[in-house]
Amino acid sequence: MTPQAPTPAYRRLSVEERRGQLLAAALSLFAHRAPEDVSLDDVAEAAGVSRPLVYRYFPGGKQQLYEAALGSAAEQLRQCFDEPRQGPLLPRLARALDRYLTFVVEHDAGFSALLQGGSVVETSRTTAIVDGVRRDAARHIYSHLGVTEPGPRLRMTVRIWITAVEAASLIWLDEDKQPPAGELRDWLVEQFTAVLAVTAGRDPETAAVVGSLPGDD
Amino acid sequence: MTPQAPTPAYRRLSVEERRGQLLAAALSLFAHRAPEDVSLDDVAEAAGVSRPLVYRYFPGGKQQLYEAALGSAAEQLRQCFDEPRQGPLLPRLARALDRYLTFVVEHDAGFSALLQGGSVVETSRTTAIVDGVRRDAARHIYSHLGVTEPGPRLRMTVRIWITAVEAASLIWLDEDKQPPAGELRDWLVEQFTAVLAVTAGRDPETAAVVGSLPGDD
Repeated sequence: MTPQAPTPAYRRLSVEERRGQLLAAALSLFAHRAPEDVSLDDVAEAAGVSRPLVYRYFPGGKQQLYEAALGSAAEQLRQCFDEPRQGPLLPRLARALDRYLTFVVEHDAGFSALLQGGSVVETSRTTAIVDGVRRDAARHIYSHLGVTEPGPRLRMTVRIWITAVEAASLIWLDEDKQPPAGELRDWLVEQFTAVLAVTAGRDPETAAVVGSLPGDD
Repeated sequence: MTPQAPTPAYRRLSVEERRGQLLAAALSLFAHRAPEDVSLDDVAEAAGVSRPLVYRYFPGGKQQLYEAALGSAAEQLRQCFDEPRQGPLLPRLARALDRYLTFVVEHDAGFSALLQGGSVVETSRTTAIVDGVRRDAARHIYSHLGVTEPGPRLRMTVRIWITAVEAASLIWLDEDKQPPAGELRDWLVEQFTAVLAVTAGRDPETAAVVGSLPGDD
């Protein structure tokens, strides 16, 4: 990567630092290419270390590195959802979506490859990591809605909307990020309001939740 | 399966008939179990033939059988979308959804395993088959909306709703098919109307499409 000054392979890094360095290199590669197009040589080169060193830290090879990088991306994504529970609800949702869409842009190819499925690195473990993020996103939304034990219809509504946001992000990346992120964000917030209203019309529990939300507009 | 009267392995069936028989046996197994839990022995037993005969027709083994069964299921699913283009729009959508939900019930475990990802039989080919069905569903909807060249916002709305229907079906299977199919169907139709209205509020093209729909209610 930097032929004039390659990072020496055996610079004194602690085990944790070294692991973090390899993981960061892997994540930056997996973020912008399909996993099929990333080799351990690429990771070693990006981190400025030897291939055997990568194997020493990740004896499971690419699959293990991929899963570790995915876990680290999942952690970043969880942080996007963190939003203080104060003020009107919809701007909170809009701010979380802003951070989410920034994450999507920063991990475009990797995000698409992961969610589109059919990748060789996809396993029940990678699926479990992604599902964990989805569950976490749902928990954040329940908490912002002020609900501790959401009923089945409210749960279904929130989970469906989360899937809709994922689908929208994939289509958006595929369509050269059109409409602009701010418009997509507002559109998704409006969809949330609309489907929540639909459910409220069918389900008294959801109606009660919607009725007691902190005022928006 | 029928120990008293096993189907003779070399009954005179044409190549096409035999292929169809093996495929039907495979589909009925893949429909109700995760692909991991179906062996070629199971398929041979269900079809009342020998394992080598299954391999003669599907030399690629389980993966090939799975993809062929998936192709056959995709064909059935496409037929669910077929709905005459007359009368008010929402009842048409409701009838197509009724058939779709019947299909989902008839292929419960296989449907979940396929769409949840992370299965060993999932490849870029199986993903392409599923995406083909999604595209076909979208084309049916554009056609019912009377649109030949949908703009980007209308397309995104329809594609997101299709993903929402998939997500709803998976959650529904997971929650012991609650709410009842008829309620889920009406709920999904209402969500479609709601998100279409949201898009119409932001996009003149969609507004024009919604304005010219054949009267519902």
